[in-house]
Amino acid sequence: MSSNSIGKIFNFTTWGESHGKAIGCVVDGVPSKIPLNDKDLQKYLDKRKPGQSKHTSQRKEADQVEILSGVFEGFTTGHPISLIIMNQDQRSKDYSEIKDIFRPGHADYTYWSKYGIRDYRGGGRSSARETAMRVAAGGIARKVIEHKIKSNFKIIGGLVQIGDSKINYDNWKNDFIEKNDFFCPDQKIINEWEIKITKARKEGTSLGAIIELRCHGIPVGLGEPVYDKLDSDLAKAIMSINAVKGVEIGNGFNSVLESGISNVDEMRIKDSKPVFLTNNNGGILGGISTGQDIIVRFCVKPTSSILSSKKTINTNLKETEISTKGRHDPCVGIRAVPVGEAMMATTLADHCLRFL
Amino acid sequence: MSSNSIGKIFNFTTWGESHGKAIGCVVDGVPSKIPLNDKDLQKYLDKRKPGQSKHTSQRKEADQVEILSGVFEGFTTGHPISLIIMNQDQRSKDYSEIKDIFRPGHADYTYWSKYGIRDYRGGGRSSARETAMRVAAGGIARKVIEHKIKSNFKIIGGLVQIGDSKINYDNWKNDFIEKNDFFCPDQKIINEWEIKITKARKEGTSLGAIIELRCHGIPVGLGEPVYDKLDSDLAKAIMSINAVKGVEIGNGFNSVLESGISNVDEMRIKDSKPVFLTNNNGGILGGISTGQDIIVRFCVKPTSSILSSKKTINTNLKETEISTKGRHDPCVGIRAVPVGEAMMATTLADHCLRFL
Amino acid sequence: MSSNSIGKIFNFTTWGESHGKAIGCVVDGVPSKIPLNDKDLQKYLDKRKPGQSKHTSQRKEADQVEILSGVFEGFTTGHPISLIIMNQDQRSKDYSEIKDIFRPGHADYTYWSKYGIRDYRGGGRSSARETAMRVAAGGIARKVIEHKIKSNFKIIGGLVQIGDSKINYDNWKNDFIEKNDFFCPDQKIINEWEIKITKARKEGTSLGAIIELRCHGIPVGLGEPVYDKLDSDLAKAIMSINAVKGVEIGNGFNSVLESGISNVDEMRIKDSKPVFLTNNNGGILGGISTGQDIIVRFCVKPTSSILSSKKTINTNLKETEISTKGRHDPCVGIRAVPVGEAMMATTLADHCLRFL
Amino acid sequence: MSSNSIGKIFNFTTWGESHGKAIGCVVDGVPSKIPLNDKDLQKYLDKRKPGQSKHTSQRKEADQVEILSGVFEGFTTGHPISLIIMNQDQRSKDYSEIKDIFRPGHADYTYWSKYGIRDYRGGGRSSARETAMRVAAGGIARKVIEHKIKSNFKIIGGLVQIGDSKINYDNWKNDFIEKNDFFCPDQKIINEWEIKITKARKEGTSLGAIIELRCHGIPVGLGEPVYDKLDSDLAKAIMSINAVKGVEIGNGFNSVLESGISNVDEMRIKDSKPVFLTNNNGGILGGISTGQDIIVRFCVKPTSSILSSKKTINTNLKETEISTKGRHDPCVGIRAVPVGEAMMATTLADHCLRFL
Repeated sequence: MSSNSIGKIFNFTTWGESHGKAIGCVVDGVPSKIPLNDKDLQKYLDKRKPGQSKHTSQRKEADQVEILSGVFEGFTTGHPISLIIMNQDQRSKDYSEIKDIFRPGHADYTYWSKYGIRDYRGGGRSSARETAMRVAAGGIARKVIEHKIKSNFKIIGGLVQIGDSKINYDNWKNDFIEKNDFFCPDQKIINEWEIKITKARKEGTSLGAIIELRCHGIPVGLGEPVYDKLDSDLAKAIMSINAVKGVEIGNGFNSVLESGISNVDEMRIKDSKPVFLTNNNGGILGGISTGQDIIVRFCVKPTSSILSSKKTINTNLKETEISTKGRHDPCVGIRAVPVGEAMMATTLADHCLRFL
Repeated sequence: MSSNSIGKIFNFTTWGESHGKAIGCVVDGVPSKIPLNDKDLQKYLDKRKPGQSKHTSQRKEADQVEILSGVFEGFTTGHPISLIIMNQDQRSKDYSEIKDIFRPGHADYTYWSKYGIRDYRGGGRSSARETAMRVAAGGIARKVIEHKIKSNFKIIGGLVQIGDSKINYDNWKNDFIEKNDFFCPDQKIINEWEIKITKARKEGTSLGAIIELRCHGIPVGLGEPVYDKLDSDLAKAIMSINAVKGVEIGNGFNSVLESGISNVDEMRIKDSKPVFLTNNNGGILGGISTGQDIIVRFCVKPTSSILSSKKTINTNLKETEISTKGRHDPCVGIRAVPVGEAMMATTLADHCLRFL
Repeated sequence: MSSNSIGKIFNFTTWGESHGKAIGCVVDGVPSKIPLNDKDLQKYLDKRKPGQSKHTSQRKEADQVEILSGVFEGFTTGHPISLIIMNQDQRSKDYSEIKDIFRPGHADYTYWSKYGIRDYRGGGRSSARETAMRVAAGGIARKVIEHKIKSNFKIIGGLVQIGDSKINYDNWKNDFIEKNDFFCPDQKIINEWEIKITKARKEGTSLGAIIELRCHGIPVGLGEPVYDKLDSDLAKAIMSINAVKGVEIGNGFNSVLESGISNVDEMRIKDSKPVFLTNNNGGILGGISTGQDIIVRFCVKPTSSILSSKKTINTNLKETEISTKGRHDPCVGIRAVPVGEAMMATTLADHCLRFL
Repeated sequence: MSSNSIGKIFNFTTWGESHGKAIGCVVDGVPSKIPLNDKDLQKYLDKRKPGQSKHTSQRKEADQVEILSGVFEGFTTGHPISLIIMNQDQRSKDYSEIKDIFRPGHADYTYWSKYGIRDYRGGGRSSARETAMRVAAGGIARKVIEHKIKSNFKIIGGLVQIGDSKINYDNWKNDFIEKNDFFCPDQKIINEWEIKITKARKEGTSLGAIIELRCHGIPVGLGEPVYDKLDSDLAKAIMSINAVKGVEIGNGFNSVLESGISNVDEMRIKDSKPVFLTNNNGGILGGISTGQDIIVRFCVKPTSSILSSKKTINTNLKETEISTKGRHDPCVGIRAVPVGEAMMATTLADHCLRFL
């Protein structure tokens, strides 16, 4: 029951540090006889990897994933699937500057306080580099969901807000998401975001963001009352992503502005099947999927890797200042899109296997 | 690994239906030699129980908790503590009206779809009545935390928004919270809320709310990377409460409006100890407590138990309408305050036992 | 993840002390729509309860089990099933004699050392009274297995050895087991055992025993490599029963006397289906059921509740002596038969739900 | 909660197939600041690896383990420790003969039935090759125990019986164990075993064995009632080892031949400390360690990899025969010694971290 594991039936355990030899994960609970190869996972990793556009970190990592076990002659065997990515970008950077200083807003101080030792190179275990393995596990999760529900299942994540600039939901186009550097569903806001993020980078600061995840094709019945509710498990999975500070389902915090009368999702029969007239509850009632689209939104704080100098302390408990140099993302929310998708996928895969 | 259980070391399992013989829970992982009796738990249950004010359900339940095991001569023994509350209010109500109809916005349709059978009396297992046992478990959790950290540990929850009406944070007074029917920390907004909620009750509708939880006295170091982060586990615990649709830590969704420069919590040394100049991150960095106050906010949707008629379907997949009669809360957010406090307490107790 | 719980999908948590108000358990993971009532469980409890014959403890307990939740209109709902048995026999016995003395061979010293407090009345939590709830949970487990495999599934336990007196396997008759006070399958040995156990009681000593469990009707495929193997989980479940000191599968320790050639279970085809020519491996290969009968044997040590005086120490670490008075079993192996059956049933139910 | 994982706090997950690219494991729950390097683990792997003597498989594997994460500058960081061993001996053997045939006594038929697919090369996931990673994890576990109990803690395993030939316990010498190919503590029986095992190899058959594990230095208090008892968890851990068919604690099955009077472990005070006059219970009472040596014995069946032809069936459910060629162990019990030690170590490490 590793704290580096998540999931009950479909579950995975990640390991590795930002600048160690490699990162990896072990995915277990995958049914046998599902076709699977490296490429099925690589396509998702390519979405997340740094250096893809000028808006993300320029760190160079091929992030080439290799399946080491659990697949035989192209099919899963029902046994643990071990994945590994060798770390390439371990350039002999001089870490002496941050070795003994806690970067504010990062996990440096808390890790050091808890463990009394820390791998200071690039954040070590607390680095968002760990999320690469979540994305790989998410690729397997999608295969599992497809295998179980055999319908037009689809997970789509989009960036819906950067700083104070929100998309117009009327402009949402799924197809456009893959066609821009922001995973943004609204073409009309792209210019504004380009300007905003370029400005932030020049000023040596960073921007927060909101991501919306939508899952289509999940049948009614996923989720286990009362603590392993589908929304509880999604909340945990999403909140565990680096820099995430909030999660909401359906109307979320906005539902507080509604009345009980307007917020109810009424039901009718259409083509002999139950349908809902609205989806204020984001496809989950009583912790169980309704069969509607599952809607989750989460926010990512403006990253603390900023160029301007900030007050902090060091391991000798002396006051000092630090500014972070180097190859950081001005808006980590962009690369959080494929990670959020992955955590939604792994959570849904787990509940598919529990129920179906 | 029951889905009706939560927690790894400090853990509890609840059971029981709204109108069954009793509800109860089994709390395990409690260290031995902690003084404990029924009254230690009853005081929290009394805060949550219905019929306390005109603003909550008029259902009459004494909610008298009894400890059945795990305590010997006034002290915990290290063995499972079994708690029970006998259900009193099982009046022979006629359920024929809702027996075959799915109340929209409730778990009726999803439970029926998943299980093929449901205890329709008062929502059965999906009823918020289950949260009474969370509150009782939370009482034990507080004892455990006190036992482990032996400092001026305190959990305080307050209602900070009803509908569109927010408190003024400058008026926050901890002492006032226990002195009003809303668990509101801002005396000046009480009148407005009284009017608002009375109006909603008369109109047969309901209101959503936002609750803020604050925990003072938690040392640095609680939380387990990377999936059992303190914020991940808090998010799961809080999201599992009935009607909750969103959770945020520290600045939460508002942090998106900040820049990386303003959102960082800088550090200094004061009296030879590390201090933070701000607490935008809500006392958690990298999933581990910083030693600052832990700040969590969550929203509760406007309840779906409303008097006006709504479109729905029945178990024969025929269209129909329903309006809910009876003794419901116009704003479930009020009674969600002690429940939220309890889930924060149980999560913190679990991480105390993992770390300290 | 309570240490008072067992099972991954079908799981249960027990609570309660020998002389507390009640004992109970919460069974979760039970599929919905299985017919279930108190009587389905009572019949197994009646087999285990004390005072049934002159060969078991004369303590008087009705052991009347009551279902408090999870069953609605005669069927399981998919929600936790809470079971309770009120303790009747709490006669105001004077415990002053054993209050501060560790009974040798019992858990008194280890519980006191670990917890610093102990409920000394009848052994408290360490009492075999806890096994009543295992038997009740086992009754539910059998219902679950029947529900999943819908074949002529059957668990049969028999006492095969008391002290040095073994049954003749050629005389094994399933029908006879329920017709004698020993749950013995061999009618011809009964006289010998009667004499043996009467002698032991008179001499104030006790006897060890070996129990054999057989399960017929389990299909091929149950068990999860490599740590949740069916035999691993059976070993854990059985070894957790009070006084058990050994567990073996199939030929067990006797297989050491065989050669690889004679110990192999060869396969043939019969009626178009795979059959094994022998069952040396007890129905489990590589941790997975073969479809043959599952055979488990376990031993129960001679109970330490004996009338003759033994050297021991007290809580002040002073040397003293103790002899146990009262209503104890001269051979706890007898009542261990229904308990062993129950643990086999709960383990198989768990693996049925994982696989089928 | 992978079925390829074991342990609650100290836990590990293994992956990999006999003839895949690599095998590995992820060990989590290890406290920070423990000195650790590859060599600490390699010494245990060298004891287990094949080709060490003429009495074990002649397969050539260097079994060189590499630590990929969780260790920084020579010390553990509190994060997952990933271990890997590249498989060397993947010679392009022709598997066509066993590809479609179930080797009797092996997991071939059960794996194929359960998963519908199997990696037939060397047994795939069911191969005892997986135990190499248990041994590596056991090396870390010993470090953890030493770190927690800081006493003269020692785990010693010895082969005490091959076929019908038992050691004389009076001849037990710990020092001799490492000096012979059998891990045998009794020098006088070596000749007999040499002859026995050579004969078995020539006859194309194999022999069963019994291994005894002793752990010195464990304090009173390890083990969690009532299901995670120390003996329950040891039984599960040991029974999960390939070919193991029985486990016993202390006197085990022999205790059945004792009377309650003779089997009790009486207590006295010596040098102001509690001592036991005997250790019939193998250092565990009520599931909790007594502070005495912990004694576990387990048996390993005569391996089914034998040269003589045996009746079996193939994947088309046709009858056929098979004899196993190649590099197998005439007595797998020998190499089971370090594996048993490792599983004892990991179980004890887990309970150390739960309690100390």
